[in-house]
Formats: sequence, C-alpha cells, structure tokens
Amino acid sequence: MRYWEDFEVGETERYGAYEVTEAEIIEFAKAYDPLPFHTDPEAAKDSPYGALTAPGLLTCSIFMRLLVDHLLLDAASLGSPGVDQVRWLKPVYAGDTLSVRQQALSKRVLESRSEMGLVKNRFEVLNQHDEVVCDIASNGLFARREAEDASA
Amino acid sequence: MRYWEDFEVGETERYGAYEVTEAEIIEFAKAYDPLPFHTDPEAAKDSPYGALTAPGLLTCSIFMRLLVDHLLLDAASLGSPGVDQVRWLKPVYAGDTLSVRQQALSKRVLESRSEMGLVKNRFEVLNQHDEVVCDIASNGLFARREAEDASA
Repeated sequence: MRYWEDFEVGETERYGAYEVTEAEIIEFAKAYDPLPFHTDPEAAKDSPYGALTAPGLLTCSIFMRLLVDHLLLDAASLGSPGVDQVRWLKPVYAGDTLSVRQQALSKRVLESRSEMGLVKNRFEVLNQHDEVVCDIASNGLFARREAEDASA
Repeated sequence: MRYWEDFEVGETERYGAYEVTEAEIIEFAKAYDPLPFHTDPEAAKDSPYGALTAPGLLTCSIFMRLLVDHLLLDAASLGSPGVDQVRWLKPVYAGDTLSVRQQALSKRVLESRSEMGLVKNRFEVLNQHDEVVCDIASNGLFARREAEDASA
C-alpha cells in the first residue's frame, strides 16, 4: 500500500501498455466528442492528420486507467482536487500503444488536514515510438502512514 | 458558423442539460477509472460521499459533449492545444443534470499562423442546484473569418 511518504520527489516510473483501437475511438467519440474526424474514418482522411485520431479526453481517460491499475488500486488515495495543465502534443491514432512516465514534482502535508498530503505529479503519455503525446500536471491526495499508525 | 472574431471577451453563455445516470457512471468507471466508489453502489455507501460519484474524467467528457453540441459543430474550430486548469469542486451523483457556463477570458491571433486565433475560455460545469461541480480553463484554436474571406 503506497502512502504519501512513499512518493519521492524527482523519482520516475514508467508503466502501462494500452492499445487504442479504432472501435474504442469511435465509441468514445460518438458519446463525448462527436466531431467527424473522431467518429468517421472516411471524413478523417480529409482532416489535417489524415486519419482517425483519438479525442483528447480519451487519451486522458486511458492515462487514468493506467494510473488506477498501476498506482491507485494499491495506494491510500484520497482523490484529486484537480489538474494544473494538460497539453496534447501529438495525435493518437488507432493502433497506437500508450504508456505513462510518472515523476513526482513536489509534495507537502495539508495545513488544514495534517493526516493527508498532496503530491504534484507530472505524467507524460507516450506512444510506441516513445513520443510524448500528452503531458499532464496533476495533484493527488494521499493518506499519511504516520497518521494511520497513530490512529491504529 | 462561429469564427475567432465572434468570441467577445467577458461574454457569458449558458447551455446544456445532460442527465448523468448510474449506468453511465458504472460503464465509464469500469473502462477508465475502476475504483470501487465509482463502480459499485454498495461500496460507494461507505465512501466519504456516501453514494456513487462520477469519475472526474466523465464530468469532463460530458462537458466536452455539451461543448461540441453547443459550439464546436458550428464553429471553425481547429482543436485545442490544451487545458490550463481543471478543478473538481463538488461530487457529481447519479441523477444529476449538468450544464455549462462559458466565458471568454482572452483572445489573440497566433503570431506564427495569423490565419487562426486562440481563445481562452473558462467553463463552469453546474448541477441542477446551480452549484459549480467543475471549473475548467481551456484553450481553443479557431479560424479567422478575415483570413477565410481573403483566401476565398
């Protein structure tokens, strides 16, 4: 179980291998981002990218899935107050395989609730060519082991 | 068709009415954020919010759908380089109805590509009690009507 204490500023981890399919792009886009270059492979041929591309929020959602599988299911996670920045740097195509590089940027105990701490992480989403397709700076709240031990 | 020229800094619009169902929360969460308080109504009763809540990225995705329906399908949109901030301020529950309040914060022509311009918008996602559940600051690229007319 990973607590706030277990994040080390500067430490980098790499994880995940999620293949993005054409079917998933179309299904997600029809529900949440129904622009023709996300929903229609034919229309996408005439777009600046020349082929179907994943909606930006699908890329973020796939990142989230990798984060849950790798980290959050085994962490004393208390949610996220928010995201500081998202940059979509390169298109994500059907057939791409995405992974995540995570680095803790800073951490602090909450003044108002000392039993938990905030970790600012940078997450780079990479494709199979090791190109960064999306760069995310996010905040996560985690319980402190110290506080847990004290209340036990 | 809305072009870059048609955004007025300070102008506010309100639109959308999207009902979030328990089925949609569970389906989205199982795919992209499979933590028990998003996927399992029973487990969610023991969580700090006492009931199933929508994953933060589902709230963002629903916002995107409302933005596409209201604005992007009839705009000279050239995509988004990224988001400057997302804050999840209140939980979104099954049965909530979400809408969007949009305000243009600033705009400028791109120095490198004068045929398009950037608009920074603030989007507040509200529930049926007019509470802001999510606050998003985002960047959108739009073609300039002037440039379109010149090339016609």
